[in-house]
Amino acid sequence: MKSGLSFLIAAKRCEIAELQALALTSALVNVTGRLVHGLQRERGLSNLYLGSNGALFAPERLAQIGECETSEAHLRACLESLDTESVIVGNGARLFSRIAYVLHGLDALPGLRAQVAQQRWTARKTTEAYVRLITGLLAVVFEAADSATDPEISRLLVARFNFMQGKEFAGQERAVGSALYASGHAEASEQQRLLHLIESQERCLRMFTEFSSAGLGALWAQSQPSSTQAELERMRRVLCTAANGAILDASQSTTWFACCSQRIDRMKWLEDQLAHDLLRECETKIAAAQNDLQAFTALSTSASGEEDALSFFKESPLPDHAVSLTNDGVAATPTPPLQGYGPHLERSILELVQAQARRLQSMGDELDSVRASLNDRKLVERAKGLLMAHRQLSEEEAHKAMRQMAMNQSRRLVEVAEAVLAVADVLPERRH
Amino acid sequence: MKSGLSFLIAAKRCEIAELQALALTSALVNVTGRLVHGLQRERGLSNLYLGSNGALFAPERLAQIGECETSEAHLRACLESLDTESVIVGNGARLFSRIAYVLHGLDALPGLRAQVAQQRWTARKTTEAYVRLITGLLAVVFEAADSATDPEISRLLVARFNFMQGKEFAGQERAVGSALYASGHAEASEQQRLLHLIESQERCLRMFTEFSSAGLGALWAQSQPSSTQAELERMRRVLCTAANGAILDASQSTTWFACCSQRIDRMKWLEDQLAHDLLRECETKIAAAQNDLQAFTALSTSASGEEDALSFFKESPLPDHAVSLTNDGVAATPTPPLQGYGPHLERSILELVQAQARRLQSMGDELDSVRASLNDRKLVERAKGLLMAHRQLSEEEAHKAMRQMAMNQSRRLVEVAEAVLAVADVLPERRH
Repeated sequence: MKSGLSFLIAAKRCEIAELQALALTSALVNVTGRLVHGLQRERGLSNLYLGSNGALFAPERLAQIGECETSEAHLRACLESLDTESVIVGNGARLFSRIAYVLHGLDALPGLRAQVAQQRWTARKTTEAYVRLITGLLAVVFEAADSATDPEISRLLVARFNFMQGKEFAGQERAVGSALYASGHAEASEQQRLLHLIESQERCLRMFTEFSSAGLGALWAQSQPSSTQAELERMRRVLCTAANGAILDASQSTTWFACCSQRIDRMKWLEDQLAHDLLRECETKIAAAQNDLQAFTALSTSASGEEDALSFFKESPLPDHAVSLTNDGVAATPTPPLQGYGPHLERSILELVQAQARRLQSMGDELDSVRASLNDRKLVERAKGLLMAHRQLSEEEAHKAMRQMAMNQSRRLVEVAEAVLAVADVLPERRH
Repeated sequence: MKSGLSFLIAAKRCEIAELQALALTSALVNVTGRLVHGLQRERGLSNLYLGSNGALFAPERLAQIGECETSEAHLRACLESLDTESVIVGNGARLFSRIAYVLHGLDALPGLRAQVAQQRWTARKTTEAYVRLITGLLAVVFEAADSATDPEISRLLVARFNFMQGKEFAGQERAVGSALYASGHAEASEQQRLLHLIESQERCLRMFTEFSSAGLGALWAQSQPSSTQAELERMRRVLCTAANGAILDASQSTTWFACCSQRIDRMKWLEDQLAHDLLRECETKIAAAQNDLQAFTALSTSASGEEDALSFFKESPLPDHAVSLTNDGVAATPTPPLQGYGPHLERSILELVQAQARRLQSMGDELDSVRASLNDRKLVERAKGLLMAHRQLSEEEAHKAMRQMAMNQSRRLVEVAEAVLAVADVLPERRH
């Protein structure tokens, strides 16, 4: 007959399986990140190419397409090896449906490239097409972050997702700026867009700093050479403050592209560090869980069942009528590590069960708080999408409107988003 | 090579696997509910037996123990058949660790019964022991409710959990009242406890009404014969308003027990209806998902790949720069049912992918809101546990203190709980 200990072992096995699925998803995210990086560069080069009416960057663009094709092949191979027959722990349905979307986008990519080669699409339309595809790829990363059940890993995944999203805003900034410089004149609406991209980028990087380890945060702070940063800020100023229609130095487009690329390449380097940290964290946790599992298994063959039959009802000094459900009546206290429990029974199995319950409980609580940031993001994005669709606003306008409301009412952005969603039913029908 | 469609199929498979795991967990909850019901009755009879110094209900108690042993055997058989080698989707680790705890409790149950038989434990201590075991069993139900990824099913599970928790408070009320009547005199602290149990019970039943279907809510409203209800309320009044130490009519203990039992048995009946609804809901959803899966699979053998290569970038009329991440830039609109899509391709696969993404998105949103009620519960319980441990309060006192704070500050109970948890670090060390 199955004992309490056998379910303790089963619980540990679940934990290990989840961690392993996470390590697998992490590998997928790495390959996705590489393709995103390549497509961001291809987008920038396409903008330079289109902005100069095909005069500049034709060979660089073709070389970059070649690189992207390699990354795409890697991603497809990785997806090929994903065991879609078996079920991925957590939100497999959502992850797979994001992947399905991305594959459609990749299938359409050669068509997009042909439009660019023949200069049949505008820089703006081309940028939007790349943005759509990259957004789809980042949605895969988002689902991976949303599936973690370990709070520390979830924290790193949230940091990573925000960093990648921030990098994408930096990439869009590079593309928009490249097209502006290459076109030779300033355009107010594109300048607004640039400002919005810079602000969004900074918001994501703040989230990254909040959720990443202190070491990585410091690494990021040091990784940007101040000379590149100063040059970038100077060019941003020139771009954003030029009067509508004013002449821009088209030759600066190359400098702008190089300067932004330097920054973005550093970001990719840091992203790889993050990926490395994440994998190491997974491995450490898997090793620890496997250690526990071994200890439990050893116990199950040696446990003598000599425990006091009534210990279950006696255990810890509970206050009056402790019926607190979620923590078995025991206030959360730090759980000592389980390592070191060999067959020599130092604590009773019941104590192990309680320690495990407390551990899962406090992990769950921490996870809730990390997840909250993802939920906030979802709410803000949905509210923004709603305003865009119903009020025919651009993304910047929708964001600005919500921020204004938040400021006027001294509320957090997410509270405004909740309010917007709450009144969704009374918003006018969207135009088709 | 794997196509977008093959991942759409994989996503559907995940959904089905999750629903099947849910149906399995539901079956486990049914067996658990039966044992809880039996133990609640055993607890009440034990109280009558102890309260009357062994003069009353000895045979009834023994018969009830026999019934509980049968239910326990069913639960153990159900656990035996649980495939602990394979991994349960969702929070398997937490579910298994709750089960491990419960098994320890069940192992200790014969010892508890022996103490009662020999009248070595007081009614109060005995009640607490049963409460502890039943709380452990209800924690299994809670984890099952917390693992659902389908919002409608999650809603039913939340309703069911609250109903079972409400029923447990009713059971405790029966036990405490039985002991009070049987002892022949009123006792202020037990009267306070009764009032608290009645209030907690009503809170849970309100939650049940909020989350269950309208049909079940109405069924519940009708299911309590007003004569039983009136009799119960009369006896509650007598019990709760008697002066401390005043004589109670000990012969009324049987009437009280019968009256409460009638109510609780009706609750069990309704709980079974709920379980039935839940299972039907699972089956309906599994059938629908399997329908979709068949349609997708048929598509995958017939799809001609004739879609416009650039449709990915053209799709829906998106507002300016729609980079909204979580809904692919498309505001959530009701998704038409997928049934009816045979090999005859009425919508493009891309549209199917997008419809699926929107569906999962809106399901996720709804799930978040249902889950929020579970999270609120966790927070309140944890805050209460903290106050109990650190301030040496009883559960009623902790609850009352928090409710008082909420009233004074015009805040929701859960906000007070958050505040309590936020200052946990500065609370005094708990005594050991």
